[in-house]
Amino acid sequence: MRIVECVPNFSEGRRKDVIDRILAPFRNQNGFHLFDARADEDHNRLVVSLAGDPDAIQEALLKAAKTAFSMIDMNSHTGAHPRIGALDVVPFTPIRDISMEECVEIAHSFGRRLNSETGVPVYFYEDAALKPDRKNLENIRKGQYEALKQSITDPQRHPDAGEPVLHPTAGATVVGARKFLVAFNVNLGTSRLEIAREIARSIRFSGGGLAHVKAIGLALEDRGLVQVSVNIVDHERNPLYRVLELIRNEASRWGVSVVETEIYGMIPASALYESAAHYLQIAGFLPEQVIELKLLEMSGESK
Amino acid sequence: MRIVECVPNFSEGRRKDVIDRILAPFRNQNGFHLFDARADEDHNRLVVSLAGDPDAIQEALLKAAKTAFSMIDMNSHTGAHPRIGALDVVPFTPIRDISMEECVEIAHSFGRRLNSETGVPVYFYEDAALKPDRKNLENIRKGQYEALKQSITDPQRHPDAGEPVLHPTAGATVVGARKFLVAFNVNLGTSRLEIAREIARSIRFSGGGLAHVKAIGLALEDRGLVQVSVNIVDHERNPLYRVLELIRNEASRWGVSVVETEIYGMIPASALYESAAHYLQIAGFLPEQVIELKLLEMSGESK
Repeated sequence: MRIVECVPNFSEGRRKDVIDRILAPFRNQNGFHLFDARADEDHNRLVVSLAGDPDAIQEALLKAAKTAFSMIDMNSHTGAHPRIGALDVVPFTPIRDISMEECVEIAHSFGRRLNSETGVPVYFYEDAALKPDRKNLENIRKGQYEALKQSITDPQRHPDAGEPVLHPTAGATVVGARKFLVAFNVNLGTSRLEIAREIARSIRFSGGGLAHVKAIGLALEDRGLVQVSVNIVDHERNPLYRVLELIRNEASRWGVSVVETEIYGMIPASALYESAAHYLQIAGFLPEQVIELKLLEMSGESK
Repeated sequence: MRIVECVPNFSEGRRKDVIDRILAPFRNQNGFHLFDARADEDHNRLVVSLAGDPDAIQEALLKAAKTAFSMIDMNSHTGAHPRIGALDVVPFTPIRDISMEECVEIAHSFGRRLNSETGVPVYFYEDAALKPDRKNLENIRKGQYEALKQSITDPQRHPDAGEPVLHPTAGATVVGARKFLVAFNVNLGTSRLEIAREIARSIRFSGGGLAHVKAIGLALEDRGLVQVSVNIVDHERNPLYRVLELIRNEASRWGVSVVETEIYGMIPASALYESAAHYLQIAGFLPEQVIELKLLEMSGESK
């Protein structure tokens, strides 16, 4: 059963009736599920988490996009979060029985279809980027909606799908494919913030540490602890156990222990199995041995 | 989504056409899935592994039982495995969103229905036993089909459902509820069998070790290793990590290391999560955070 995660961001976080109408195509669907929908008034933005069959998700997303395009006018939109369109950004993430290459294809075909059916110009980012400088979302959103109205005519900023002109009210949309991001916090038994900061610096990629790992040090003042807050951008290449054991080792230099860890939000089953298999030293472990995963796979096949 | 495992054992391991007809109600069903079906000619026995919705499983099982009762004559049945009936034994095991108490109720209602619709007398065993000496399956099967013909008239051996007389061709059936058994092998870096045997003795319940744990020591002669072969009868009370770490500690006394481990057959997701959460020190981990488990739950609700 092919499963992707898709997290569309819409530029509406205030008008409840509009939010409800945008979300309607995602509710009680076969083939995929609405995991979460968070509207933020300051950002004036709606972040939706979907997971399931990529075809079913695309059909619903197209309906939601058309609703958003008909009800959101970017000319009067204000909000703290950077944005260039009513449907601002759509990332597809492989979860199960699907490759990154297939998610790139899905991003491209969805983006082109979105453009041809609505006229909204589309940019491709991250793994779906067609130009190297468009891997980074912030390059595409530079100057936001207001500046892009003019700069889109610059060949450097022409969209990847559609004409070089923003939709008069809906702006443009960024569609892409990226890996699943695991948010993993490691709490340390000390109140010395400099230790968490030093460890974060040493383990993150930008500090010369693990590839695919971002980290910062934070104080948990209420608890008298500090935290190394980690984003693992590619948990298959740098699994949770490796990040944890590296932090544990660095902390031991100060005589500091790991008190506990936290997984924030959703996580793919594989991110837990790879760590269970490591610590339990399981040879030749197959996900098909897990009853629930096999049932999920079979429930997809029987549809 | 309620999930049980059910492993009915039928007394037919030789006639392919009969096996196919018994299995027919289990194939390509909604609500549950046929994980495995093993026919053994020496045992003359068919062991079927089902998992999914308990109601759907019971309906299919009743059909399969009626087929077996019409095609198997216990008077001419021979085989190496102990048995008292054409459908010999039916255990129900809780996997997800269902308690052992509910599985006991399922065993009782299924057993009574089987008896009322077919006339085959039924005994209840393990957690579903109504008499203490019937917890152990072997007490119920004592003397097997041939002896039970007479001894069933003894009040001590009256069935729990139905009249105290065997069905003329289908014998009797044993229905019960039991926990999921995890088969976990730990391979040690030595060829000295006495070390595996000594460790097995020290960690198993019968040797004064962990409750709910059975273990024996075996030689893996081809590989020059030995194995502690473990059955964990209650993996919630004695998780895999605890069994492994106890074996690792005992082995260290001889300077012997754990080379690898193996999980044999199916395993519930929770058996892996509890070990992942232990080693990763995850605080407040919820199975609902796992995308695949949430999708499975939701796929059950939408039906």
